[in-house]
Amino acid sequence: MNDVIDFIHTNRDRYVEELKQFLAIPSISAMPEHKDDVRRCAEWAAAEMARVGLENVRVIDTAGHPLVYADWLHAEGAPTALFYGHYDVQPVDPLDLWKTPPFEAAVRDGDIYARGACDDKGQVFVHFKAIEAHMKKTGRLPINMKVILEGEEEVGSENLGPYVREHAGELAADMVLISDTEMFDRGVPSLCYGLRGLAYMQIDLRGTKGDLHSGQYGGAVANPANVMGHLIAQLKDKSGTIKIPGFYDDVRELREEERAEFKRLPFDEKAVKKHLGAPRFAGERSYSLLERMWARPTLDVNGLLSGWTGEGAKTVIPAVAMAKVSMRLVPNQHPDKIAELFEAYVKKIAPKTVELKVTRLHGAFPWMTDFDNVYVQAAGRALEKGFGKRPVFTREGGSIPVVADFQAALNVPVVLFGFGLPDDNLHAPNEKFNLDNF
Amino acid sequence: MNDVIDFIHTNRDRYVEELKQFLAIPSISAMPEHKDDVRRCAEWAAAEMARVGLENVRVIDTAGHPLVYADWLHAEGAPTALFYGHYDVQPVDPLDLWKTPPFEAAVRDGDIYARGACDDKGQVFVHFKAIEAHMKKTGRLPINMKVILEGEEEVGSENLGPYVREHAGELAADMVLISDTEMFDRGVPSLCYGLRGLAYMQIDLRGTKGDLHSGQYGGAVANPANVMGHLIAQLKDKSGTIKIPGFYDDVRELREEERAEFKRLPFDEKAVKKHLGAPRFAGERSYSLLERMWARPTLDVNGLLSGWTGEGAKTVIPAVAMAKVSMRLVPNQHPDKIAELFEAYVKKIAPKTVELKVTRLHGAFPWMTDFDNVYVQAAGRALEKGFGKRPVFTREGGSIPVVADFQAALNVPVVLFGFGLPDDNLHAPNEKFNLDNF
Repeated sequence: MNDVIDFIHTNRDRYVEELKQFLAIPSISAMPEHKDDVRRCAEWAAAEMARVGLENVRVIDTAGHPLVYADWLHAEGAPTALFYGHYDVQPVDPLDLWKTPPFEAAVRDGDIYARGACDDKGQVFVHFKAIEAHMKKTGRLPINMKVILEGEEEVGSENLGPYVREHAGELAADMVLISDTEMFDRGVPSLCYGLRGLAYMQIDLRGTKGDLHSGQYGGAVANPANVMGHLIAQLKDKSGTIKIPGFYDDVRELREEERAEFKRLPFDEKAVKKHLGAPRFAGERSYSLLERMWARPTLDVNGLLSGWTGEGAKTVIPAVAMAKVSMRLVPNQHPDKIAELFEAYVKKIAPKTVELKVTRLHGAFPWMTDFDNVYVQAAGRALEKGFGKRPVFTREGGSIPVVADFQAALNVPVVLFGFGLPDDNLHAPNEKFNLDNF
Repeated sequence: MNDVIDFIHTNRDRYVEELKQFLAIPSISAMPEHKDDVRRCAEWAAAEMARVGLENVRVIDTAGHPLVYADWLHAEGAPTALFYGHYDVQPVDPLDLWKTPPFEAAVRDGDIYARGACDDKGQVFVHFKAIEAHMKKTGRLPINMKVILEGEEEVGSENLGPYVREHAGELAADMVLISDTEMFDRGVPSLCYGLRGLAYMQIDLRGTKGDLHSGQYGGAVANPANVMGHLIAQLKDKSGTIKIPGFYDDVRELREEERAEFKRLPFDEKAVKKHLGAPRFAGERSYSLLERMWARPTLDVNGLLSGWTGEGAKTVIPAVAMAKVSMRLVPNQHPDKIAELFEAYVKKIAPKTVELKVTRLHGAFPWMTDFDNVYVQAAGRALEKGFGKRPVFTREGGSIPVVADFQAALNVPVVLFGFGLPDDNLHAPNEKFNLDNF
């Protein structure tokens, strides 16, 4: 093992040069004009996977961008890990805010700057190089590995889920390993064992056929924008409690060990508040901020539109009002059940003076692996060896839909260990990746 | 007097041809490219006013579009009426919904169709022709007349108010006569003795410096769109009662005679509901619909904007949320006082988790003349003579800011008598004017 680590240290400069090649390919999955670049990137990754010693390498066509698969299955008796990552990247706009071109990686102060440096090419590349080091110094890997990369993570992973379900046998493993998350903080190795899910709804109200003059009809007809205000106020009260009957029924309460683990995390509330520019934090007082962000369900209005939104005064009673409302879910809430409860409640509280339409826009399961799970703990020991300190066990507030896809299709634990940092500018200009973490 | 009326009947065809010339000038005050047309229209009106026998005709330049003034002041001992109207018109979009071109007036089934046919060229023209008939047949008018027309009614009348205040002596009269309102219904001559006022506000909330990811921060920070819902719900309750402390203090309650007058009006609630496409009416149950629309104050959200309003699901916590909220006022509410009460209340109920900004966008005084006023009653008798039936006494729910301007500057009663019909498509395609009313 020490040989392997020495090999890694000796080859660091070469690694950075190789990573720069990976980062130079503008594999922006959202932009049709980059379709060929996305494929070129898949092929580059496939070639690299062969180079580091993986076998059965193949680029797999889908209805969208290709998947890339490879494996090494000669560690008899040892467990099998399925590694997932993605080689596609976000668009780069606004380009003028980048200090160096997004597809010409540049090293500054121990960070490498480029689109995809952290999300997710840099993190994927870490695993390629770990495999390479093992293969070069010992001729083998300590466990069996399957690797699957996708090129559509930034556009909704539409083709990955079906592929995983249809090829569950082929992809069978004892655990799934994903490096597409953040470390809690610089120098704090992190293992993420839980994610929130999502139920995303749209409410449309119609009061009248067309907009009315508020002078003419004000006081006689329901105004859908006023009604929308009443609906929103009845969804979540001022203290942050969601008022939809049955909403909390399936919520798995935080264990005392989890709360203790979160409490020991170096979370600087004042610094975060200043960074966000929030006058004060808000939400459920009986939970800490991290608990609220990671392990409590919540409800947010994501969009509002009605009537006159330009400059100045237009005296209109809007015909319609629209609200987008999404709920972050935690284990064991079910996105479909929550969507049903939401719909039933809104139908009940909406007055008969307006026409109501509720639409389900998106759902995602919450996910968690118990953090005393054997693979989570093994991943924790690996991180401790690499960083020289015990990792922290975290959850995240967002969703990574593929995590639930893998867990549902393969029925094995998923371990998320990420090397990103909270200030790595994911999806933003000047994305970077810390070379110490690398 | 019968000579005058005969003259009018004999000349009807000529009148329609002349009105078509007036309507052919696209005097759209809101569109800079029609600036010259607006002036051309002022000059056409000035020439017409000279033609019918008015004196001292002049086109008066302002910072915007010109005013037109003329008078006839030789009825010694008789009272003086100041007539106000406007010669500018609304834009014509969407053009493809017009059955005939908006500036080529066409007569169909006893109606004349054109932009401005009713609002307000047609109504102004009625008065021109009444003056002409008197002058032609008797060589004089029965009362002294001053006429002032403006070209900015459709864009806020910014220059009229100051002009009226500065020239109050010159414009002095015993009453002001305005024909820019509707008849209650076809064949129902109407005198409007009251208008509602307005206090138009904008609420801006900011939660954080920028939009946040709802997965990352949902549950920890205030969402300004959720907060806006709570504010809106606290402004007016579900039964239509406004919750701003002191809001109703200065409201002049309806007199029993007024309620009785409104009750005898032929108002078909079912037909109106169907026309509007409203599932049900809403509002204060202890007042009739007409009372609610004409003589009760109300509060409407005129616009809402926050976060993601496009297609699909974007999991954003919006940084900001905006609402436009306006209140219709009735005598004796004061728009500035109401704006202050609104601002104080919103500041009190807004949580400290968001930054709040309240802006006053517009204010207008409510107005009413007691309907037993001598000039109102005289105008009523004139209408009775013209239509062969007693007119109804109505109020309207909107504001006509110049009414309050005239009343404040000249301190005399204002009489509104309009010849428009409720289905004349003011501000919409296929605007028309009924030639019987003409």
